[in-house]
Amino acid sequence: MSMLARGWGICPGRLQPGPLNSIADVGGIGIGHVTYCKGDIQTGVTALLPYRGNIFRQKVPAACHVINGFGKSAGLIQLTELGSIETPIILTSTLNVGTAFQGLVEHALRENPEIGRSTGTVNPLVLECNDGFLNDIRRPVLQKADIFRAVEAAAAGGTCAEGAVGAGRGMSCYELKGGIGSASRTFTIDGRTINLGALVLTNYGRLPDLRIGGDPVGKRLAALLSDKQGTTEQREQGSVIVLLATDAPLDSRQLLRLARRGEAGLARCGSFIAGGSGEIVVAFSTAYTIPHIPESAYIDCRFLHDDYLDTPFLAAVEAIEEAVLNSMIASETVTGRGGNTRHSLSEYLAGLGYSHSE
Amino acid sequence: MSMLARGWGICPGRLQPGPLNSIADVGGIGIGHVTYCKGDIQTGVTALLPYRGNIFRQKVPAACHVINGFGKSAGLIQLTELGSIETPIILTSTLNVGTAFQGLVEHALRENPEIGRSTGTVNPLVLECNDGFLNDIRRPVLQKADIFRAVEAAAAGGTCAEGAVGAGRGMSCYELKGGIGSASRTFTIDGRTINLGALVLTNYGRLPDLRIGGDPVGKRLAALLSDKQGTTEQREQGSVIVLLATDAPLDSRQLLRLARRGEAGLARCGSFIAGGSGEIVVAFSTAYTIPHIPESAYIDCRFLHDDYLDTPFLAAVEAIEEAVLNSMIASETVTGRGGNTRHSLSEYLAGLGYSHSE
Amino acid sequence: MSMLARGWGICPGRLQPGPLNSIADVGGIGIGHVTYCKGDIQTGVTALLPYRGNIFRQKVPAACHVINGFGKSAGLIQLTELGSIETPIILTSTLNVGTAFQGLVEHALRENPEIGRSTGTVNPLVLECNDGFLNDIRRPVLQKADIFRAVEAAAAGGTCAEGAVGAGRGMSCYELKGGIGSASRTFTIDGRTINLGALVLTNYGRLPDLRIGGDPVGKRLAALLSDKQGTTEQREQGSVIVLLATDAPLDSRQLLRLARRGEAGLARCGSFIAGGSGEIVVAFSTAYTIPHIPESAYIDCRFLHDDYLDTPFLAAVEAIEEAVLNSMIASETVTGRGGNTRHSLSEYLAGLGYSHSE
Amino acid sequence: MSMLARGWGICPGRLQPGPLNSIADVGGIGIGHVTYCKGDIQTGVTALLPYRGNIFRQKVPAACHVINGFGKSAGLIQLTELGSIETPIILTSTLNVGTAFQGLVEHALRENPEIGRSTGTVNPLVLECNDGFLNDIRRPVLQKADIFRAVEAAAAGGTCAEGAVGAGRGMSCYELKGGIGSASRTFTIDGRTINLGALVLTNYGRLPDLRIGGDPVGKRLAALLSDKQGTTEQREQGSVIVLLATDAPLDSRQLLRLARRGEAGLARCGSFIAGGSGEIVVAFSTAYTIPHIPESAYIDCRFLHDDYLDTPFLAAVEAIEEAVLNSMIASETVTGRGGNTRHSLSEYLAGLGYSHSE
Repeated sequence: MSMLARGWGICPGRLQPGPLNSIADVGGIGIGHVTYCKGDIQTGVTALLPYRGNIFRQKVPAACHVINGFGKSAGLIQLTELGSIETPIILTSTLNVGTAFQGLVEHALRENPEIGRSTGTVNPLVLECNDGFLNDIRRPVLQKADIFRAVEAAAAGGTCAEGAVGAGRGMSCYELKGGIGSASRTFTIDGRTINLGALVLTNYGRLPDLRIGGDPVGKRLAALLSDKQGTTEQREQGSVIVLLATDAPLDSRQLLRLARRGEAGLARCGSFIAGGSGEIVVAFSTAYTIPHIPESAYIDCRFLHDDYLDTPFLAAVEAIEEAVLNSMIASETVTGRGGNTRHSLSEYLAGLGYSHSE
Repeated sequence: MSMLARGWGICPGRLQPGPLNSIADVGGIGIGHVTYCKGDIQTGVTALLPYRGNIFRQKVPAACHVINGFGKSAGLIQLTELGSIETPIILTSTLNVGTAFQGLVEHALRENPEIGRSTGTVNPLVLECNDGFLNDIRRPVLQKADIFRAVEAAAAGGTCAEGAVGAGRGMSCYELKGGIGSASRTFTIDGRTINLGALVLTNYGRLPDLRIGGDPVGKRLAALLSDKQGTTEQREQGSVIVLLATDAPLDSRQLLRLARRGEAGLARCGSFIAGGSGEIVVAFSTAYTIPHIPESAYIDCRFLHDDYLDTPFLAAVEAIEEAVLNSMIASETVTGRGGNTRHSLSEYLAGLGYSHSE
Repeated sequence: MSMLARGWGICPGRLQPGPLNSIADVGGIGIGHVTYCKGDIQTGVTALLPYRGNIFRQKVPAACHVINGFGKSAGLIQLTELGSIETPIILTSTLNVGTAFQGLVEHALRENPEIGRSTGTVNPLVLECNDGFLNDIRRPVLQKADIFRAVEAAAAGGTCAEGAVGAGRGMSCYELKGGIGSASRTFTIDGRTINLGALVLTNYGRLPDLRIGGDPVGKRLAALLSDKQGTTEQREQGSVIVLLATDAPLDSRQLLRLARRGEAGLARCGSFIAGGSGEIVVAFSTAYTIPHIPESAYIDCRFLHDDYLDTPFLAAVEAIEEAVLNSMIASETVTGRGGNTRHSLSEYLAGLGYSHSE
Repeated sequence: MSMLARGWGICPGRLQPGPLNSIADVGGIGIGHVTYCKGDIQTGVTALLPYRGNIFRQKVPAACHVINGFGKSAGLIQLTELGSIETPIILTSTLNVGTAFQGLVEHALRENPEIGRSTGTVNPLVLECNDGFLNDIRRPVLQKADIFRAVEAAAAGGTCAEGAVGAGRGMSCYELKGGIGSASRTFTIDGRTINLGALVLTNYGRLPDLRIGGDPVGKRLAALLSDKQGTTEQREQGSVIVLLATDAPLDSRQLLRLARRGEAGLARCGSFIAGGSGEIVVAFSTAYTIPHIPESAYIDCRFLHDDYLDTPFLAAVEAIEEAVLNSMIASETVTGRGGNTRHSLSEYLAGLGYSHSE
């Protein structure tokens, strides 16, 4: 945990983080990674289970917001229509979305023999970024078995590893190393403790735009590095996926409102939402589930009144900001395809005036 | 061609069909099918090429409208953001969307060595219906090679085979046999001939709802058949995909307006848009292309003024209505999974008072 | 009641109408009209109260769907964001939307002294059609007092007058007389009786497109009338507003799904959704209210599971179809601006082969 | 001009401002204000003309993005459907939207005798914020004549006055004085100079959230002021309207992409997009117009390729950030309803370490 933003004294926002300062603070969630890192192949899969039981039979309420739709995700149409998620969420490299889709299909068929018999099909949810700078995407190496392994690892639960792991292995962020990052906020609404966590897969941005806690460090760092390494790309071609989880009882309309704050979270790190960047936010609640086959036509639910959404909104923005920074600081430097290298932000923090707590 | 709606004197609407009365009347398009029909496996792939050259380098303007998002299509987010299509369009069975995605990826990588090197990734467009009544979807048999074959067949062009072919092989419509159907309209706007065609993949509806030219034949037929075959499903679980092509010069906003008329077309056949039915319309124009790498930052285009959209709108509604009927009339009776059978509407038309022209 | 569709043996669909066959079958609703009919001024206001208490303090859950956005309605943005309605719904002539807005503001200020003091503002909901064929819209005669009168009439409750009354006074539909129409369906879900009603303000369509129960009577009637009256307009410039009310416990996402079936309802009457026609559906539930100032941050609700929405969807489509026909049949012939006349459909029904029950 | 952000050495972003550093840098635009400032009445109207000729006959291409729909704007539905604006844009206080609507109607009727005769109606575009803290919104004082005066002032063109003028008179921002602000960026795309300007009406935010160039000055200022003035509101109830103008040739889809960057611009000033804040962005291009009555069905246009949108996107974000700061710095301190006071940010800048250039 020490190699994260807070270890460097970087504490974005004013709300308190949860005990793990990770999306895992929202109970009942599981995260698992499968990582490939050999030469030109620097890629992987991250699975997030919004519900650790049979999620096809007990779906979680959800919404998604497309900040910039230059992306190839699968499953968002039905997620929006029904306001629910019914498979594990898979994050991976762009040109493997289909493999992940088939992996989730096979997993669901195995777990639910009624699919294709007494009930319909299943809606796999797959989100992606293009790790093509460090990873040779012309060789899609991932297999369905990798999806199963990631889902199994997620089912085993535990904490959320961050940095250059899983889907984050080959990602670039602000021309440094990106990857998987997470953070959380905890607060009280009307006597009840609420946790809200973000998990991000970061792969966007130009170095001069990077900000830490509002400080435009990217400009300084770009000047510093201009001798050593040239600018690597002319046009931003990145992406970023944001997952928001909360145990607040929100319905899909409210979760959509939450997801729409994602742009503000990314903007805090300096993003202006470049045109070639696929930026998507998926938000879900663990406060209740929606049965595939209901016992009655009518379901009783408890919801938060909209007047109380400001703290969750602020929590989402702050957690996203910190999760992006964590994704960069937690990532080691990686050399991949054709010798391309992305350095870890952590290498430069001391030079930028930050000091590590121990 | 004779075993289509017009062969039975069924001529929906008041506009003229094009010479082929098919989406192929819109020039430059190609359609190809790969069909599996053996025992419990009744499924396939249909590929539609909106542009027969290298569509990744010359994209076609497009839009999509989700009538009811209970569906698993891939590629719609980026299509909406950029207003363009950059791969062949694949129609197939629900649980094969990922395979089709990977097939399109591999096809694009082969055709465009710059992907993953000097340029980014590619956005595969895959649409689906659930053919699970006639086809054993728990055994997804399709391979990437089937995608290649369908795309090659489409590139060879020719006319559009209709009925129980390609992706339409295992589909059910109004509890009869559904499948692939097409129809077109041709008209003049300010001295220029415009063609507009629809291709549908039909897999929705309960028999009592079926209407032909407004006539509620489904009720009569349901009464007629009630002795012979029981109602097969309690709840509608279908889907329908509508592709609209036109050579009218429309931009993506106008194509979205066109696509949104899809619900009216389906309603003419009696649909009330059931909740479990994934209903999606994709519309594109062949009047111009959008280069992947433009020669200049500025592109000259010619567009239709919105005041002239009523005839294209009506044409879309009429072509969809006729295409749905064609998908049913052109389909032969098919027996598939577990002996399940869907009868062709054509078997009953004479009994319903329609007579075939020869 | 006898001069409605059912009096002529026209009974669209297969579900049962409620006891009043009107949106008033959904309890707790009120409808009131103010009508202007003198020479060139043929216009009015219709108010619908979704809740007859203080709706600002007890809001009703709602959603809206824009079928075709060629319209000037006010209040839809906030309705969508918060999923609720907090004023009476006003229907009126296009160029009076601002007057109706100010009327609703003044009404809310009077009822709620806390607005602009301890609480914020209020979101007036105003929907409109252009009655310019029969009414001189260059002279907007409506006053805020008319809004108050319509709301008061609605608060007094009672049944829903239909035809050339209120906002419907000057409307045209299929080149015949349009106006206010209503219809309902009643059905049972899991032991509970559900009512669903539609109220429409019809002002769209060309005569040849009109269908009654699928039968293209418009074509016949157009041929019949072609000697007597020429076609009056070159391009359709109409609109139609659809209000859907239900006592089923639906949340705003589900109400949006319901509203999106509106296009199918209109299509059953022959509409292809012309480009110049503002077509908007607002749906709300009376099953529960959302307090402006909640007692607790958490609210308990009961919802219908999505698997049970098909009957409400069908009910919406059928009720809209019948409401459109009622708006035409209930309307008398009206002569207005510059001697322009719209004839009542009821004048022609006998000639078209329909017979009135007594 | 000196009492703006740049006068204090605050120069957000890295692109160059235009010569006026205002939305007026985009040629052909006009801005006019009408201001009420007497005791409890602190309000007004701001008119922006996207085209100084007859805009009903020559419409400008446009799009809008709703960041948070807690707002009462009028005209956005049709703007989205047709992708164009056909009246002056009016900004005003929330409960005067209807009056502004009627003012725009009367203005359009006067200028266009064909409305309601040979052509249809007109779509007034009115955007609002709630100035209720400083202004007594229970007494809506604005008249249609004020709309005429603001439009006439705008037609006379000139530069854009900023601060506590027009619609900005009674607005609050970050618990300081908000109002009208503007800024611009100028840059070159493929040899052509492009201007992009923002005009904002700011009325949102809590003091501790304010950031200047990333620096969280709001926290420091809140600590500084905590003795002198208590926190005034428990929950944010604000709003912000953003208008983006550019002479880049963009179509409505591209303008929507531009508008969607608005959230990032606001986030740079510290906003987390509170739930009670109506936040709306309208973007338009002056590069071409769309005729109400086209000479031909086909229109020739020149568009920017999407690959070149990153600089406009960045320009929008930077211009919004600077415009928000300008709206605050340019505003004088205002005391209004019940003695409520909002102080100008400019009073505190020196204490926060900023120094004015002369």
